[in-house]
Amino acid sequence: MKKYNIAILGATGAVGQEMLTVLVEQNFPINELRLLASKRSAGKKVLFNQTEYTIQEANRDAFEGMDIVLGAVENDLAEKLLPHAVLAGALVIDNSSAFRLDETVPLVVPEVNPLDIMTHKGIISNPNCATIIALVAINKLHEYAHANSLVVSTYQAVSGAGNPGIHELETQVSQVMNKEEVTSSTFPYQIAFNIIPQIGGFDENGYSSEEMKMQNEGRKILHHPDLKVTCTCVRIPVYRSHSESISISFDKEIDVAKARELLANAEGVKVMDDPNNQVYPMPLDTTNQDLVYVGRIRKDLARDDNKSLTLWCCGDQVRKGAATNAVQIAIKYIELNK
Amino acid sequence: MKKYNIAILGATGAVGQEMLTVLVEQNFPINELRLLASKRSAGKKVLFNQTEYTIQEANRDAFEGMDIVLGAVENDLAEKLLPHAVLAGALVIDNSSAFRLDETVPLVVPEVNPLDIMTHKGIISNPNCATIIALVAINKLHEYAHANSLVVSTYQAVSGAGNPGIHELETQVSQVMNKEEVTSSTFPYQIAFNIIPQIGGFDENGYSSEEMKMQNEGRKILHHPDLKVTCTCVRIPVYRSHSESISISFDKEIDVAKARELLANAEGVKVMDDPNNQVYPMPLDTTNQDLVYVGRIRKDLARDDNKSLTLWCCGDQVRKGAATNAVQIAIKYIELNK
Repeated sequence: MKKYNIAILGATGAVGQEMLTVLVEQNFPINELRLLASKRSAGKKVLFNQTEYTIQEANRDAFEGMDIVLGAVENDLAEKLLPHAVLAGALVIDNSSAFRLDETVPLVVPEVNPLDIMTHKGIISNPNCATIIALVAINKLHEYAHANSLVVSTYQAVSGAGNPGIHELETQVSQVMNKEEVTSSTFPYQIAFNIIPQIGGFDENGYSSEEMKMQNEGRKILHHPDLKVTCTCVRIPVYRSHSESISISFDKEIDVAKARELLANAEGVKVMDDPNNQVYPMPLDTTNQDLVYVGRIRKDLARDDNKSLTLWCCGDQVRKGAATNAVQIAIKYIELNK
Repeated sequence: MKKYNIAILGATGAVGQEMLTVLVEQNFPINELRLLASKRSAGKKVLFNQTEYTIQEANRDAFEGMDIVLGAVENDLAEKLLPHAVLAGALVIDNSSAFRLDETVPLVVPEVNPLDIMTHKGIISNPNCATIIALVAINKLHEYAHANSLVVSTYQAVSGAGNPGIHELETQVSQVMNKEEVTSSTFPYQIAFNIIPQIGGFDENGYSSEEMKMQNEGRKILHHPDLKVTCTCVRIPVYRSHSESISISFDKEIDVAKARELLANAEGVKVMDDPNNQVYPMPLDTTNQDLVYVGRIRKDLARDDNKSLTLWCCGDQVRKGAATNAVQIAIKYIELNK
């Protein structure tokens, strides 16, 4: 079996660390593993699969000899460094939003549009976390009845802002409990015992960048340029796993029983839908899981046409929303190129 | 000026306590104030407006001589006791859901349907908290463009479950911080650092009782039996103030500028809508406030007909969602009967 030289750019961040975990879990065929991070972290030791690795400095020359580079850094660094990984001959799978809407870059959720991988010109983008979770949840329903519009409200965990988000919630909860002054730096306002209806900056139309990703990335992944999406993205004081309330309108009729049947057989989905027995997805239960959990499936009462459903889903945005999806793209890429 | 004999049934609960606060703030014309609670609380002393009151036992004979009775107990007790308050000649303003959908009982939000007060037969019901907040937010938009459907997702504070809800979040946060086992009794699962997509029991259609209130009470208050509502109600780890993401479809065209203008002049509403300067409603800012805060007003991108808006609102559900609304009904009742 062929083994691959893999680099992780941003190996010390929340997503980079999770990529390491997922590579081990998936028993990924690794020859050389290169962990890249900022100069500040270079030289630090990391234990991975019972082997000690030394963090190397991320720079233009760091990708030599790599087959696959997993990107887990912010847009500015991704734009600066990842083209050099392509020039060095590697396939880049990038978690930043820097290249997602570029026409020559496929944007891939392996359960939804795996064959788009084959169109890559060196970079494959990993979609926005909330978008991945929503699309895994609705993909089989869309294939059956063709979605025309989505109304989405999100409940997004602080780890969506990486390790600093986790640290800020922990610190603020302590400050509140000890009646100390609450300090904020990662989020614009106190997030402990509060929620903030802003993730990213705002467009002229009043939507945040995170909200527009659901529409713009959703359209690209589904090859559905007419999909209409209104989205409200909200940061909440939960450590991990994003939740989403979704109402979907379809072109064709679909009922709840059919939706449950489709989702029961959907790759990457686990149906948890027995509300009378208090079975429904929650962030705590879906943390450290790779599946998207779907429940509360019901007729959308805002429309009376039997072509509309309302549902609830949760997924670990550091895993399926980022690290797992990236590694799954790499695995699918290897399968497709056999 | 006439002064009134007022009783509060459930004076030791979260809503009953807040009713006391609001009566003082509103300088309500009180002659006798009678504080009623369970046998267990009877005899306890309460300080109100610099006067000490003794809690009396709530029973069928406790309402004699009262002009107005504010009900702040659960349905079973409301059903058992409040008809006796009516028989004793009092006007009952009840916060439970026991009588809300009775044909002979007006369901009132003073900013929305004040004149319904005049149709009372002894009981006026105070609507569900999330419903009050949504209706105050959208009422002027509905008057202008006539709403036909709502898609609502809520973010509801633990104090919606009264003082036990507050206590449970505090206790669980301590348990998590101290790495102790987390215990739940008020909520079906851990609420600290988690969210629960269940408030109330479930109907056969898969909606929770709290979710159906938004449609059924909304229809009654707006005198709009055809209003279509899909709602997802979610409990979140915030102490106080409910938040709601609402997409509204109207019969007539309405744009964002018109909506802002209407809401700027709407009774009971404060517009906080300058997202580029990080101005939007949040639970922390709206706690202990009587107004409903509205922001993130934008075109609903899920529809392309210029007849649809998406917005975000927050309101203190113990105050405007319960105690304040009840006291405002009493004040409006006095005004209308002058």
